[in-house]
Amino acid sequence: MLQTPGVTERLAHFVVATQWDDLDAKVVHQAKRSLMNFFAVALTGCRDGTIAAALQTFAVFSGGQQATIVGRCERIDALSAAFLNAASANVLDFCDTHVPTAIHPTAPVVPALLALAEMTPVSGRDFLLALVLGHEVECRIGMAISPSHYKRGWHITSTCGVFGAAVGAGRLLRLSAQQMVWALGIAATQSGGLCECLGTPAKSVSVGNAARNGLLSALLAAKNFDGPAEPLTGAQGYYHALNETADLASLTRNLGETWEILGTAYKPYPCGFVIHPVLDCLLGWRQANPAAVVEKVTVTGNPLLAVRADRPQISTGREAQVSTQHAVAAALIRGRAGVEEFTDACVNDPKIVALRGKVKVLRDETFATTSAAAEIVTADGKTHKVMQHAARGSAENPMSDQDLAGKLALAAKGAIPDNDVMPLIEAIWQLDGAEDISGLAPLTVPRG
Amino acid sequence: MLQTPGVTERLAHFVVATQWDDLDAKVVHQAKRSLMNFFAVALTGCRDGTIAAALQTFAVFSGGQQATIVGRCERIDALSAAFLNAASANVLDFCDTHVPTAIHPTAPVVPALLALAEMTPVSGRDFLLALVLGHEVECRIGMAISPSHYKRGWHITSTCGVFGAAVGAGRLLRLSAQQMVWALGIAATQSGGLCECLGTPAKSVSVGNAARNGLLSALLAAKNFDGPAEPLTGAQGYYHALNETADLASLTRNLGETWEILGTAYKPYPCGFVIHPVLDCLLGWRQANPAAVVEKVTVTGNPLLAVRADRPQISTGREAQVSTQHAVAAALIRGRAGVEEFTDACVNDPKIVALRGKVKVLRDETFATTSAAAEIVTADGKTHKVMQHAARGSAENPMSDQDLAGKLALAAKGAIPDNDVMPLIEAIWQLDGAEDISGLAPLTVPRG
Repeated sequence: MLQTPGVTERLAHFVVATQWDDLDAKVVHQAKRSLMNFFAVALTGCRDGTIAAALQTFAVFSGGQQATIVGRCERIDALSAAFLNAASANVLDFCDTHVPTAIHPTAPVVPALLALAEMTPVSGRDFLLALVLGHEVECRIGMAISPSHYKRGWHITSTCGVFGAAVGAGRLLRLSAQQMVWALGIAATQSGGLCECLGTPAKSVSVGNAARNGLLSALLAAKNFDGPAEPLTGAQGYYHALNETADLASLTRNLGETWEILGTAYKPYPCGFVIHPVLDCLLGWRQANPAAVVEKVTVTGNPLLAVRADRPQISTGREAQVSTQHAVAAALIRGRAGVEEFTDACVNDPKIVALRGKVKVLRDETFATTSAAAEIVTADGKTHKVMQHAARGSAENPMSDQDLAGKLALAAKGAIPDNDVMPLIEAIWQLDGAEDISGLAPLTVPRG
Repeated sequence: MLQTPGVTERLAHFVVATQWDDLDAKVVHQAKRSLMNFFAVALTGCRDGTIAAALQTFAVFSGGQQATIVGRCERIDALSAAFLNAASANVLDFCDTHVPTAIHPTAPVVPALLALAEMTPVSGRDFLLALVLGHEVECRIGMAISPSHYKRGWHITSTCGVFGAAVGAGRLLRLSAQQMVWALGIAATQSGGLCECLGTPAKSVSVGNAARNGLLSALLAAKNFDGPAEPLTGAQGYYHALNETADLASLTRNLGETWEILGTAYKPYPCGFVIHPVLDCLLGWRQANPAAVVEKVTVTGNPLLAVRADRPQISTGREAQVSTQHAVAAALIRGRAGVEEFTDACVNDPKIVALRGKVKVLRDETFATTSAAAEIVTADGKTHKVMQHAARGSAENPMSDQDLAGKLALAAKGAIPDNDVMPLIEAIWQLDGAEDISGLAPLTVPRG
């Protein structure tokens, strides 16, 4: 039935055999962009209460201080660091997204690699190659069961992320193909995570586990801790247990020819993507009209905008992430839409509350989900019309390299204000020239 | 559809509200029997190469030395100890079994409780109550999806064990009902484990995780690390993700009136249960006829005996666990059927190889799976007939208290030969009188 002997083995051989020269420049550059975005989102999340509570819990049991916790002074063992950095990257829903599966692929993979790179020398090229390969396998394992797997309630970033972390860490540990199959098996038997936990700190546990347990899988496999021959497609393997009709061809179709990392999107704003083109409209207009007093705003977008985010009455930062009214009001009053515009404090700012009441959302099926228009009526009686055809961060209008570096710089300004962020940005763009990247994550440790 | 609001909450309230006096004497006694069996199987497994490799892996990252590793001199942090002791208990398939679900319930629960009891004072009564409650919830969560869940390839001991460990550890940490719901949610999002890994060291990873991650769930919940309101039955909760039609009534039917721990069976021999009545026949006969020379053996049993274990040609200890021919030959030649009779060395002992060739297995549908008969032809030309109606360890013929203490004594003789095992056995039978059980697991540390 689901049995297709050899598919895990084929993935393992691919991972072990792929060399730096097999990656074209576009793929390498996108890996750097994903890494830039990773540091931005990890710095954004690293002060969240969830991370502090998890760190406090692990510290009691942790020994070695092998690894950096991004944006923090504490050090911790590599397994716990992998957990904490993955959780930081994902906690505020500001991650990169693999569009075909909705996996946030970098959060589980990069922390496993960074932690390992502080234990054993890793070159920039090895790091980027491991990142690309982990990302590739993680996304392909998810593609075979998308979209049903995620819809059913599995948190696909967690369930598939553990494979990505295992593959990436396994590549850095120079596992043999046989060991890589074992690592995938040990990852498979640790795969878990439920969407029911979204919106609660429990979400961070499965994301953190994906990084930690993927790293653990590779470390165990390196000790010849063996596993089944076909963990993915065996008679009692991963896909069968999930009770899914898996599209197994997508696991290996054009393997090594196409790269899933090229399908990654990055978020300019820490809120629901349907709101992004609306923010593009309003922030652009505000920049051009800094002094104008707004009386009324009417936003038009794809019906999904209204379904997901027509939410005039809110009381928490979390709700704000899916409130068009709030996003518009905050953008107009503060001229920004960063993390601080989606906090409880901002939501309850009386000026923003007042303006939220003057924002209306209209539906228009001719709009794509990445498009929006706005009509702004100002106190002088004038009506201003603005339109965004393709939101920043969408496939048609991807975030530029400068945008991504700016996202990192902004996050660093919040989390590590006394650090000069330029060395980190430079180090990422020049990572393929680095002989040893163990100093990369420590650049995020707060100075002073 | 699957939404039955409140079922996780009902379980949580039950766990928090149940007091020592709510347990009747039979339940308490059975908990002690499960604990006796736990120490026996953990001591049997603790020298396995799988445990050594996992210990070596964790030691690099581990800090505190809060907890005992059963049967070993090393100490390690409580989370890693929970992992290792669960893996030890389960690695040789010698665990207790909850018959309705085939869960091995004690392996994930007890290690979490023992580790916690070395960090914070725990009385014997609190420990036994936590064990019974963890066991109860773990088995009920499994009953709701049995037998389909296990058949589909989920390693039910692992997937459900994490809930049991969370509940037991949460009870010791005196979680509120709300915190207990969170602990169950954090456990749900960590639930995993595949039967495809059975027969490989990877099996031990999900069993170890069940104990470790269950303990972690309780520790996080104690820090008010919150989770969803209905992790089991929510729209994207555990049962929905599994794509199962869950029998939700079994989660709460007669809760607090019946106790699943009373349905536990213990194994006298470390091999497939279908072979157990055959061993009863042969070991009993050998004891009565120590000098007789055997020419031929014909075994008759339920057809399942032949389906699972008619296996004359074998080469490894693992295969021996499902070979009637091997079990018969080893029992006749060595007069025992312990762990040492299911090793590679025993399988390749020329005397045993020779006798294996003289053993035949017949099918008879009138036999229950717990019954067997044997005809033994001896060198003097006589034919001896023996019959076992109900195997030792079956519901009709449970292992006696003395049998279980003997199982522990035998395991201790192998793993910790210089220790006097009587204080451990006595401590278990008298556990409800102990003020602080932190000294219990250390009784298994090798002396000298």
